[in-house]
Amino acid sequence: MKLGRFFYANRTFFGLVEDDIVKPVKSIDPLIVDSQIYPKDLLKILPPVKPSKIICVGLNYRDHACELKLEIPETPVLFLKPPTCVIGHMENIIYPKHMSKQVDYEGELAIVIKKECRNITPGQANEYILGYTCANDVTARDLQPKNGQWTVAKSFDTFLPLGPVITDEIDPNNSNIRTYLNGKPVQSSNTSNFIFPVENLVSYISSIMTLKPFDVIITGTPSGIGPMKQGDVVEVEIEGIGVLTNFVV
Amino acid sequence: MKLGRFFYANRTFFGLVEDDIVKPVKSIDPLIVDSQIYPKDLLKILPPVKPSKIICVGLNYRDHACELKLEIPETPVLFLKPPTCVIGHMENIIYPKHMSKQVDYEGELAIVIKKECRNITPGQANEYILGYTCANDVTARDLQPKNGQWTVAKSFDTFLPLGPVITDEIDPNNSNIRTYLNGKPVQSSNTSNFIFPVENLVSYISSIMTLKPFDVIITGTPSGIGPMKQGDVVEVEIEGIGVLTNFVV
Repeated sequence: MKLGRFFYANRTFFGLVEDDIVKPVKSIDPLIVDSQIYPKDLLKILPPVKPSKIICVGLNYRDHACELKLEIPETPVLFLKPPTCVIGHMENIIYPKHMSKQVDYEGELAIVIKKECRNITPGQANEYILGYTCANDVTARDLQPKNGQWTVAKSFDTFLPLGPVITDEIDPNNSNIRTYLNGKPVQSSNTSNFIFPVENLVSYISSIMTLKPFDVIITGTPSGIGPMKQGDVVEVEIEGIGVLTNFVV
Repeated sequence: MKLGRFFYANRTFFGLVEDDIVKPVKSIDPLIVDSQIYPKDLLKILPPVKPSKIICVGLNYRDHACELKLEIPETPVLFLKPPTCVIGHMENIIYPKHMSKQVDYEGELAIVIKKECRNITPGQANEYILGYTCANDVTARDLQPKNGQWTVAKSFDTFLPLGPVITDEIDPNNSNIRTYLNGKPVQSSNTSNFIFPVENLVSYISSIMTLKPFDVIITGTPSGIGPMKQGDVVEVEIEGIGVLTNFVV
């Protein structure tokens, strides 16, 4: 299934996406859809979820860690982004010119949680995952201290594009992921390079904090991160999910 | 005014606290109360707010910075705690024995936001502040790296007691703050030692992220932090607010 969140006629709703049509969703778990059908082009696309929290993984691609000559971490490095960062497909990333002169893209696979969970094992994780979407962990690199907290650099409004849809039809630990800047490929990897597979991430994070429905975990970025400037178009493409497109303004 | 959040007869509500009685609140801004009156003892006390995000300041007491021989930061060090950390007055802090062997208290003044704001000046800040409450930024010290992200150490469920009430009747930049462990004073300072006064914190944070109603900013801890063990009672007392009591289990 492919799920999105949409706005039409003063109403916000989850919708099941089938080619060019969208069926409003009555219930996510179990999945029950309305008899109504909308042409997709009629609807405004929203971020696919409104998470209560966003947990981010710092370094999770083996090739990237080797490239940077960083030690492979024994447990995932975690940080948080605030919910006010979230925007959707085709929305604008606002460059915080008043504070930063280097704003980077970081293409990532995002995990979306389906059901509340706490202290679950990797073997139980799939039961609690709704699906996967594309994410861009936008970062004001010049505000990210090497030996300090990353919150300022990572928390500006619009610094977490998510979308376009959530799907459960991919192998999250073996999917091609690419980032394009103005159409030119700048990141290209496969999630089989993950140091911690998605099941281990969900399990580990759930041993620290209760995960709630629609919470989002972004799983780290591969090599090739770099700066964007105003006027740029940035796209994150994950095989089987689609392309998340955003404009830097 | 003193505001709390309460639960009674299957209903959750804000209440205006006047000595031993509570008047349910119909509207926070402007403040409008119900004609109904409850004896305070009848009600279950909840955390005074349910924040959409919690922004924390790393080092904000001049005396504490000097004691640790740390440089006074030029801008506030920020990090986030997830909403799943929040508990109320008289609730239990759950010791995460499966991961940590040192869990510390950190008594702090918390700012509660009243109205959505973005890019406001220090002079405008008071208009957007609902009031102040006591906070305990509970931290698994042995999981807090010196040169890394603090999220794991700070994000366990129950690691942010808040309460007992929110008040606007204090001078937030000149209030005595004390922490007690099993009745013994362990932290004692005054918020006049703040490196960044509350108005500057709200202004600075609003230049990064939009603040929403009931978002919480915790303003850093004074000297005297130390460990707690299971069975301990920890109290944070701020002059004019009251005492926030929690049990370590």
